[in-house]
Amino acid sequence: MLYQHGTLGTLMAGMLEGTATINSILEHGDLGIGTLSGSDGEVIILDGTAYHANEYNEFRTLTGTELTPFATVTPFKPDIQFTTHIITDDETLLDEVLAKVGSKNIFNAVKITGTFEIMHVRMMPQQQPPYTRLIESAKVQPEFTKEQITGTIVGFYSPQLFHGIAASGFHLHFINDDKTFGGHVLNFELNKGTIEVSKIETLEQHFPVNNEAFLTTDIDYANIDEDIRETE
Amino acid sequence: MLYQHGTLGTLMAGMLEGTATINSILEHGDLGIGTLSGSDGEVIILDGTAYHANEYNEFRTLTGTELTPFATVTPFKPDIQFTTHIITDDETLLDEVLAKVGSKNIFNAVKITGTFEIMHVRMMPQQQPPYTRLIESAKVQPEFTKEQITGTIVGFYSPQLFHGIAASGFHLHFINDDKTFGGHVLNFELNKGTIEVSKIETLEQHFPVNNEAFLTTDIDYANIDEDIRETE
Repeated sequence: MLYQHGTLGTLMAGMLEGTATINSILEHGDLGIGTLSGSDGEVIILDGTAYHANEYNEFRTLTGTELTPFATVTPFKPDIQFTTHIITDDETLLDEVLAKVGSKNIFNAVKITGTFEIMHVRMMPQQQPPYTRLIESAKVQPEFTKEQITGTIVGFYSPQLFHGIAASGFHLHFINDDKTFGGHVLNFELNKGTIEVSKIETLEQHFPVNNEAFLTTDIDYANIDEDIRETE
Repeated sequence: MLYQHGTLGTLMAGMLEGTATINSILEHGDLGIGTLSGSDGEVIILDGTAYHANEYNEFRTLTGTELTPFATVTPFKPDIQFTTHIITDDETLLDEVLAKVGSKNIFNAVKITGTFEIMHVRMMPQQQPPYTRLIESAKVQPEFTKEQITGTIVGFYSPQLFHGIAASGFHLHFINDDKTFGGHVLNFELNKGTIEVSKIETLEQHFPVNNEAFLTTDIDYANIDEDIRETE
């Protein structure tokens, strides 16, 4: 089971107000990704704890009372596990994940633990109200690259048909072992590591039904497809 | 909660093999819609019983062992109820439903019970393997119109962002009081009746993870948007 609060499409359209607490997200899983109000940075959920990397490259453990407009989480139980001992780029590795899952038509959750030759991440800069389309803040997102860093990638693969609900393809966040650095993964090279994959049978899509702005706004989903591809 | 097995997009793409029993669908709700293997006709789920209307205008109660490639169901508990005593066309009535829900951005489930001046339905003709895109069989779908008929409309409203997963807007099936006639609603005029609406907080989207054809096919989702609009 994969639990998602909010949709990426709604976030892209500029509905950035937090509508669920991090604690309420953690009730549905122990591994995941998300962001905070204003699309502030990158949330990484690993082993039941939520962490946050902001645009200033600051890293902290969340208390749980923070609000999120968009988060995806799963009670992670791997169906597939394999290791790699040669340097592998993200495209090659993620193709291997899909080959082992045997399908591009279901969601899967991944956890990649190891030493990374290169880890290239970004952190989304926080918007202040009144919020605009996410692509506006994405244009100025700071990026960071680390070499020879140990840590864990967590995230999800979404089928093409769900582009708009989530980002089709892989959407991955990184956290280092020291819990001092992380972000939204742009690309990486894994030196050696363990890859665990969970096949997802059910997507539980939750809507912020108590948020008046979400309920009543005439959300403009034009260009959402391209916006997501450009932003993510 | 709204439970859906399969997606309309996958059905449109011609993946018409049944992948869940009607009984397994009924475990998740007592009101809903669907179709059978080969996109055979229209399934109507009312008060926990599943009925079927086929292309020959035959109507029967399902045993529960039949297979469906696509069905949507909810444990129906109305949040909103209102009545109407003047003849109202579908567009006016469904606009009123959305106004009372107060949002176009969440799913809702509807049940409309009453006497209909006009009920215009279609039944999708069953395909035999090898299956083709659904729009091919939709082109020759038989339509039926009844006047002064009492019965119940059941179905769902899906937000625009979920077009492809479901049909955005209202997707409604009809069953008459005598349980002898029904189908996929094209348009209607309600004479007098009761309208009940349930706001949906969570969509539980289930995938046919044990169906090899679904898992391994490179599904062509091009033109899905237009296909759904034309077919539904």
